[in-house]
Amino acid sequence: MKTPFSEGNVGLERLVFFSDAVMAIAITLLAIDLRLPLAQNPTAGQLPGLLLRLFPQFLASTISFFVIGSFWSVHHRLFLYIKRYDNMLTRINLVFLFLVVMMPFATSVLAGFGGTLIGVAIYAGVVAAIAFVHTLMWRYATQEHRLVDSDLPEGLVRAEYRVSLLAAGIFLASIPVALLSPYLAQFSWILWRLILSVITWRRKARAKG
Amino acid sequence: MKTPFSEGNVGLERLVFFSDAVMAIAITLLAIDLRLPLAQNPTAGQLPGLLLRLFPQFLASTISFFVIGSFWSVHHRLFLYIKRYDNMLTRINLVFLFLVVMMPFATSVLAGFGGTLIGVAIYAGVVAAIAFVHTLMWRYATQEHRLVDSDLPEGLVRAEYRVSLLAAGIFLASIPVALLSPYLAQFSWILWRLILSVITWRRKARAKG
Amino acid sequence: MKTPFSEGNVGLERLVFFSDAVMAIAITLLAIDLRLPLAQNPTAGQLPGLLLRLFPQFLASTISFFVIGSFWSVHHRLFLYIKRYDNMLTRINLVFLFLVVMMPFATSVLAGFGGTLIGVAIYAGVVAAIAFVHTLMWRYATQEHRLVDSDLPEGLVRAEYRVSLLAAGIFLASIPVALLSPYLAQFSWILWRLILSVITWRRKARAKG
Amino acid sequence: MKTPFSEGNVGLERLVFFSDAVMAIAITLLAIDLRLPLAQNPTAGQLPGLLLRLFPQFLASTISFFVIGSFWSVHHRLFLYIKRYDNMLTRINLVFLFLVVMMPFATSVLAGFGGTLIGVAIYAGVVAAIAFVHTLMWRYATQEHRLVDSDLPEGLVRAEYRVSLLAAGIFLASIPVALLSPYLAQFSWILWRLILSVITWRRKARAKG
Repeated sequence: MKTPFSEGNVGLERLVFFSDAVMAIAITLLAIDLRLPLAQNPTAGQLPGLLLRLFPQFLASTISFFVIGSFWSVHHRLFLYIKRYDNMLTRINLVFLFLVVMMPFATSVLAGFGGTLIGVAIYAGVVAAIAFVHTLMWRYATQEHRLVDSDLPEGLVRAEYRVSLLAAGIFLASIPVALLSPYLAQFSWILWRLILSVITWRRKARAKG
Repeated sequence: MKTPFSEGNVGLERLVFFSDAVMAIAITLLAIDLRLPLAQNPTAGQLPGLLLRLFPQFLASTISFFVIGSFWSVHHRLFLYIKRYDNMLTRINLVFLFLVVMMPFATSVLAGFGGTLIGVAIYAGVVAAIAFVHTLMWRYATQEHRLVDSDLPEGLVRAEYRVSLLAAGIFLASIPVALLSPYLAQFSWILWRLILSVITWRRKARAKG
Repeated sequence: MKTPFSEGNVGLERLVFFSDAVMAIAITLLAIDLRLPLAQNPTAGQLPGLLLRLFPQFLASTISFFVIGSFWSVHHRLFLYIKRYDNMLTRINLVFLFLVVMMPFATSVLAGFGGTLIGVAIYAGVVAAIAFVHTLMWRYATQEHRLVDSDLPEGLVRAEYRVSLLAAGIFLASIPVALLSPYLAQFSWILWRLILSVITWRRKARAKG
Repeated sequence: MKTPFSEGNVGLERLVFFSDAVMAIAITLLAIDLRLPLAQNPTAGQLPGLLLRLFPQFLASTISFFVIGSFWSVHHRLFLYIKRYDNMLTRINLVFLFLVVMMPFATSVLAGFGGTLIGVAIYAGVVAAIAFVHTLMWRYATQEHRLVDSDLPEGLVRAEYRVSLLAAGIFLASIPVALLSPYLAQFSWILWRLILSVITWRRKARAKG
């Protein structure tokens, strides 16, 4: 009898599928608070006020959409290299998904308390934790080529590793920044995202060249 | 080692799957506001009033269901032709999904403020933006046959391109119409949908004949 | 160039997948109202009262779960036979999904107004409409073996056709029953479900024997 | 004509997919109550109070996340062995999913009434029921190798069987424990989870050795 954990098995596909579904739901639920209450006698004059009140929620949801989107993107890329799985990978992935599912909560904290140190710290902490568990998952999979092809270049392994750790570091580092200004901390996330894009870009270019 | 972005790879399938899941969730969440509150001592007499109050929400959800359904349908068709993907396509697709996720919000605006210029303008703006990003995605994929088969007929490329742009145009054009009457603007969407169906129909018929 | 609508294409799979996702979300959203409010100083004594108040919602959700589950089951079976698809099938399927997405709404009507004629009529109407569109989809697919294998036995086609129409009939017929008693109408659904199971069972047995 | 229930058919895949989607949605919906209300004039001082009020919900959601996650994991493992399906398996699976969909409800009961016997008993009852139906599904599939490979080792069948029954037993046994202390009962779940992990671990090790 063939062991179910071997390469090409339907099991890995289902693990990836389940992860995709959870991330897709979490990313879509971000918008669930972004709805206007049903007004009784709506007039055009009320709308700007209602929209303005939703603005912090809108901003936080937008940031979270691209945070989860980025994690999906990296998860996607890593699982192109991961060819086998075992119970431990399933468990680490479950913890990863648990933290992703916490994102709508963290988003509501950011929306309501984005102007306070503790609000920004909670959000940054959750995102850093996701990035950290992601790094762990990659480390577990690639250590002694445990779950990846034996010819996966060491440079690629390390590059992914560094980018994941960097993401964790950026969000952790933003917590002391929030001591100065919570809004500066949020701005630093966007700034670093751009820098990270450039790094990835250069890594890709180097890989091609 | 095989590059993960080549044709037939599991990666493209996962990108499509994630997009499908997000669109499926967004389309289903439209109905989440369409629920009656739990009544204490319900009598048959209360029901018509409660249903009537839900009517604008019902109408807006119905329009949005078929708007998202149409976008799913076109996304589906385009990805039958797209054979490869890269980081940029993933990113454009993520922006596309972000706007789709905004649809429940836009729907609640239409439900509450469909009788006002600003309400119709916000809704039309979101839909036009989705159509525009979709056009962009198709342009990116087909430019110099970047991500499609090299023998994909130029006529088909341009036809899809025109239909997408037209959808964006219809919703943008409805904004000045809403100056006259917000309800006329909403009616124009349905009217144009029918016209668009005829155009697609004729294009299909020509392709077959 | 291969036409995208031919047999074995990824397109049909994606259509089925999207349908599955929408049905899975709709079936899970049924339970979203089945949550206790966060109590301030909860005592064991409060719980029975809170549960009792949720009972109509629980009953309605349970019925709807198995209604959607049955439709999923039949949709599943039919698409084992459907081998090709075209724009019209996609459209009929979209209308089918639209009605499925209306089920949480219909469920809230049944939960709140299950003791009234109009409440039962709305619920029965939505379910009958789903069954009717499903029948239509099957008819479209099998007419002159349009989208099914040419050797699909006529008996099987007609059997599925009859079961689908029967389901529509049962729910429509329950509306006049609700004139006598709304609860009798609801009971008739469960009764007929059992009878339908027996019919399917006998059909299966005959097919095997 | 090929029968749709034979091995390797798309039908089984779709059954598994639908189950995955329902479990993914149920697990993600757990976090839907874990959101802060939109504050009007939020101050950092309010946040700890709001978070504290969410704590029982957070704890209950966390337990439920890993309960559903474990069930997904076992469902996943079992369906690696299940190679065929029939109507009865589809039905048992639907009952299994129905109980999974009840988990957000059971979680809200635990969050609100985790300190009461009845609250713990309801939660434990739902989880035990899921485990029991899961055992039933496995028994149905493996009896006389009905839906599994004929060379599936009897030892593996029985091991899975025992683990499933054990899970049901643990949650049932915690109900009398809740007579002493509801919190002790909840603690027993976590304790047993660890013991169960060790059992699984030893079984795996033995299978390898």
